[in-house]
Amino acid sequence: MPYVKIEVTREGVTREQKQELIAGITNLISTVLDKDPNLTHIVIQEIELDDWGFAGEQVSVLREKGITAQRK
Amino acid sequence: MPYVKIEVTREGVTREQKQELIAGITNLISTVLDKDPNLTHIVIQEIELDDWGFAGEQVSVLREKGITAQRK
Amino acid sequence: MPYVKIEVTREGVTREQKQELIAGITNLISTVLDKDPNLTHIVIQEIELDDWGFAGEQVSVLREKGITAQRK
Amino acid sequence: MPYVKIEVTREGVTREQKQELIAGITNLISTVLDKDPNLTHIVIQEIELDDWGFAGEQVSVLREKGITAQRK
Amino acid sequence: MPYVKIEVTREGVTREQKQELIAGITNLISTVLDKDPNLTHIVIQEIELDDWGFAGEQVSVLREKGITAQRK
Amino acid sequence: MPYVKIEVTREGVTREQKQELIAGITNLISTVLDKDPNLTHIVIQEIELDDWGFAGEQVSVLREKGITAQRK
Repeated sequence: MPYVKIEVTREGVTREQKQELIAGITNLISTVLDKDPNLTHIVIQEIELDDWGFAGEQVSVLREKGITAQRK
Repeated sequence: MPYVKIEVTREGVTREQKQELIAGITNLISTVLDKDPNLTHIVIQEIELDDWGFAGEQVSVLREKGITAQRK
Repeated sequence: MPYVKIEVTREGVTREQKQELIAGITNLISTVLDKDPNLTHIVIQEIELDDWGFAGEQVSVLREKGITAQRK
Repeated sequence: MPYVKIEVTREGVTREQKQELIAGITNLISTVLDKDPNLTHIVIQEIELDDWGFAGEQVSVLREKGITAQRK
Repeated sequence: MPYVKIEVTREGVTREQKQELIAGITNLISTVLDKDPNLTHIVIQEIELDDWGFAGEQVSVLREKGITAQRK
Repeated sequence: MPYVKIEVTREGVTREQKQELIAGITNLISTVLDKDPNLTHIVIQEIELDDWGFAGEQVSVLREKGITAQRK
């Protein structure tokens, strides 16, 4: 009985990327914890940039300053 | 001091259905746990079908295949 | 695909009360939203009294003052 | 490693108010718990008035009756 | 800025399994969404069997009946 | 109608620190959003170090390596 919630900033996540996350995490949980995928629910919630704060600043402000969340 | 969060796929839940859920759950908690309804908050969150994964698939894909969540 | 989270202060909720909440809410959702109970998951989380704040005070402090959450 | 989620009814919260909440809570956590702000994430989620229930009623109904959440 | 919450029944998940979930999901998000792992937080919450309801029954009751969540 | 959830690693947060967080956040929300404190609920959830992942590693492992979350 796993339930997974993914919160991520709304910055152009595509339908295909969401499907990759859902398939990948369901598969990982099934493999690592031996859980039936029919009992695994995953919810993705995209958050507006004004609504996510990091280090005391809105992400919308960080992005205006050119600070991204991409891998280095 | 109960707080309840209901997450459900966004598939045409009406205002009246939401009111039924809110009234019914508040009443149930009040009856079973003897809690003051003035301390009971309930939040309903509708989730887009692309954002809910079940059994490794997006619900939007399941619905396209004709698989519903209705009672049998 | 409903998922429900119930957060309530840890004040002696019994196994039977939890079962009543789970059965009652699952039944309500099934009736109001026509959802298959096999797709309905409910999670109860009990919160220590020091960890729940209401009106700016810990519930543990409110209880020491004789303020309860019971129905009037 | 703190993560904070703020759920509030959608009633005209401005970008500036969100920034005040994010800065204020990050600062409070940093001061009280001695946490690095670079490890503190805050998410604000606004909830439609039909989707928040209080005392068994939708907040949208309460507002129609003239009942607000403002300080007395 | 992703945050992930995993809720799973408390049934002997080991420290190694948790590490596999954390490493696997962080890697998946980094690959699929191109997110810096230093901005990815994952929280695992184990839920007692009396506190998880499925299909209207406590999981503790389902387990007593021999119904498991294992892959078929 | 605000509800706030604070998740933080379980590393010796005291009852007094929790009270400071509850009072401070309730006051901040009351000031910034003009919300009645009697409608503001705050829940603190401490997470075991094995159960919080950051940058792909359990916090328990990071602490063993001498990496803390303290302000620099």
